[in-house]
Amino acid sequence: MAGEHDLKKDAAKIIRESISSALPGRNVRELLFQADVGSGKLIVIAVGKAAYKMAEAAYDVLRNRITAGLVVTKEGSEVGELPGFRVILAGHPYSNQASYDAADAAIEMVKDLTREDHVLFLLSGGASSLFEKPMISPETYHFINDKLLASGANINEINTVRKHLSYVKGGRFAKICEPAVVNTILLSDVIGNDISMVGSGPTVQDKSTGEEAFSIIEKYRIRVPADVIQILMQETPKTLRNVTHEVIGDIQLLISKAKQCAESLGYQTVVLTDSLDCEAKEAGRFMASVARTFSPLKESIAFILGGETTVHIQGNGKGGRNQEMALSCARGIAGLPNVLFFSVGSDGTDGPTDAAGGIVDGETVERIRKCGMDPYKMLENNDAYHALKSAGALVMTGATGTNVNDLTVLLIRP
Amino acid sequence: MAGEHDLKKDAAKIIRESISSALPGRNVRELLFQADVGSGKLIVIAVGKAAYKMAEAAYDVLRNRITAGLVVTKEGSEVGELPGFRVILAGHPYSNQASYDAADAAIEMVKDLTREDHVLFLLSGGASSLFEKPMISPETYHFINDKLLASGANINEINTVRKHLSYVKGGRFAKICEPAVVNTILLSDVIGNDISMVGSGPTVQDKSTGEEAFSIIEKYRIRVPADVIQILMQETPKTLRNVTHEVIGDIQLLISKAKQCAESLGYQTVVLTDSLDCEAKEAGRFMASVARTFSPLKESIAFILGGETTVHIQGNGKGGRNQEMALSCARGIAGLPNVLFFSVGSDGTDGPTDAAGGIVDGETVERIRKCGMDPYKMLENNDAYHALKSAGALVMTGATGTNVNDLTVLLIRP
Repeated sequence: MAGEHDLKKDAAKIIRESISSALPGRNVRELLFQADVGSGKLIVIAVGKAAYKMAEAAYDVLRNRITAGLVVTKEGSEVGELPGFRVILAGHPYSNQASYDAADAAIEMVKDLTREDHVLFLLSGGASSLFEKPMISPETYHFINDKLLASGANINEINTVRKHLSYVKGGRFAKICEPAVVNTILLSDVIGNDISMVGSGPTVQDKSTGEEAFSIIEKYRIRVPADVIQILMQETPKTLRNVTHEVIGDIQLLISKAKQCAESLGYQTVVLTDSLDCEAKEAGRFMASVARTFSPLKESIAFILGGETTVHIQGNGKGGRNQEMALSCARGIAGLPNVLFFSVGSDGTDGPTDAAGGIVDGETVERIRKCGMDPYKMLENNDAYHALKSAGALVMTGATGTNVNDLTVLLIRP
Repeated sequence: MAGEHDLKKDAAKIIRESISSALPGRNVRELLFQADVGSGKLIVIAVGKAAYKMAEAAYDVLRNRITAGLVVTKEGSEVGELPGFRVILAGHPYSNQASYDAADAAIEMVKDLTREDHVLFLLSGGASSLFEKPMISPETYHFINDKLLASGANINEINTVRKHLSYVKGGRFAKICEPAVVNTILLSDVIGNDISMVGSGPTVQDKSTGEEAFSIIEKYRIRVPADVIQILMQETPKTLRNVTHEVIGDIQLLISKAKQCAESLGYQTVVLTDSLDCEAKEAGRFMASVARTFSPLKESIAFILGGETTVHIQGNGKGGRNQEMALSCARGIAGLPNVLFFSVGSDGTDGPTDAAGGIVDGETVERIRKCGMDPYKMLENNDAYHALKSAGALVMTGATGTNVNDLTVLLIRP
């Protein structure tokens, strides 16, 4: 019964409801109403793509109790003013001077605290680049970062290296806060629930070793000077006192809401994975092969996936991992009726674009061709953005205020 | 309850039973008992990896009714003697002089037939390279083939090009048989049930156009002389008279038997796809992410996939697509208990190796490391064979006598 129109409406609803469930404001408030923040100084430091929303919620609850505050979030984010808070807009996915200023400002705020004082650390994804003070020259640091980002290294590998090159990551920031109590509230964008990987874990004791960091540099064949290797091999804190951590949102939350919403729309659901981590365009091909096998169907079915794919950049186009996956899938489902596939970043931005991701069906490839473009060449040139844009196949949400990784869904109707 | 030992036993049973169901002998016999092969000459030509088994079954039924016979199969295959049949062992995956001799011999057998005569054409996978008479120089033909095989082109793309460069493919062999009746019995190794792609369809009218063949050459940036382009653009037969086709085995048969067997062993089953066609190692990563999400489980579950993945060769190691997929998956499931993954070629040979595929679990990576090898580097060097061999993780079946593509299964036990 249901046609393309319904599939698009269903997809819009699933995207809207699942992302809403992962917005941090309400969950931060609920947690802080019952929190013990002691009677000493209370420093609130919010870092990450969702930092402003998290800080705002903290301010709503704690108000004048806050001694000083800092918000560090991505350039271009919508932010307001919070009394007593300094707001720094820093670089992402590449650290910049503002990222270093942010780390310096935070260190300044916490370096002379006592054991009566509290640091409320509100952490979300993106913090790895937004909040940084490298132990090596910015040039070498950027060189290594660039190489890792372009090599297809996964985010855990990139963060392991970052931790070992940083004054504030891998638990080192919590060490600076000692002897104060550090309460961390996390919105997690890492797969596999390893909180030490969110923002490279400034306040989380770190189990990654110098040896591991070095092996990643070797694996991706990145040449670095001997003194950098020495720094890379230094160990991060393996134990931390007076730290607590609460996760208020993650990919599981996003997936479970998507599942619930799809079921309410009449779909049978299969959650295939919450830790998708392969090459984006290959995941798109894989899901297209699933679509071809299941379509046509007697029942409606939704395959739901969460995670974060990678992209090996080979071309000079514009796109993001979700758009690549969608364009690749579009090629494999070309001509199929009653099939729709989308992949979106829950933060509303996919790669260096203004789109959250891509949404494609059996007609998308034909629409792209009608605009005079070759979907294959566009994909090869990592130019999914312009291909999908021509077909009206971008998902545009604007910045969502949350960041709990990517949601990928394949919908099939009878 | 069930440990690693049971998983391995289950896997062995699924591999054995599903491949048995796709052995061609019985199905060819059943079909021929009722077949009308007229009263004129009867020429039996069997081409492909399963050619000998198919010809043997035809001989069992038709015996002295056969005027002349030809078996063309892969070098190194186990073959016997069949009265009245010539047997040619030819090159795979690369055509060689024997492949050209085979096509010449077949043309000689059918070129002067009348409308009272019948050609029984027994076709299985591998025929594309085993049975060939190129319209261009062997050097240029090999150059194009090599480039396509190494570029990651899928088998449909490779065969489209082959058809247009060949005197015997894309229906052109059936044209030579005219006005005789041509009855084709197929064991299909192509995904998506397009019989014109099995062995590049010597007896099947072809819908691929010269334009398409040319666009594939362009897509993979293969430079060829202008006269080759002219030949490439010539159309294959779009209509054929007096041809029939019967499929006696394909990937669906293999999958349905694997499903039935897994269910008999107590697994819930999910057939994810019958047309898997992405990069082998990325499919392995994808399935590892599924394993990580589903393990541990309360119920036993089996994910079943069929298809044919591709490998972009970057290194100089030894392996095949099934072994690559298995090694890649092994990295993603390292440490997981009660999970087993295998991928096998139903013909019993995966790439240029003596293994049918790979079978891995949560301990495989550790076993490889204990042998002093780095699973990551081995995968990058396309050396899955030696990595898996060191861990006892190769599947060795020997040549099976059938060829209906690859079976991939993920088993998860509580």
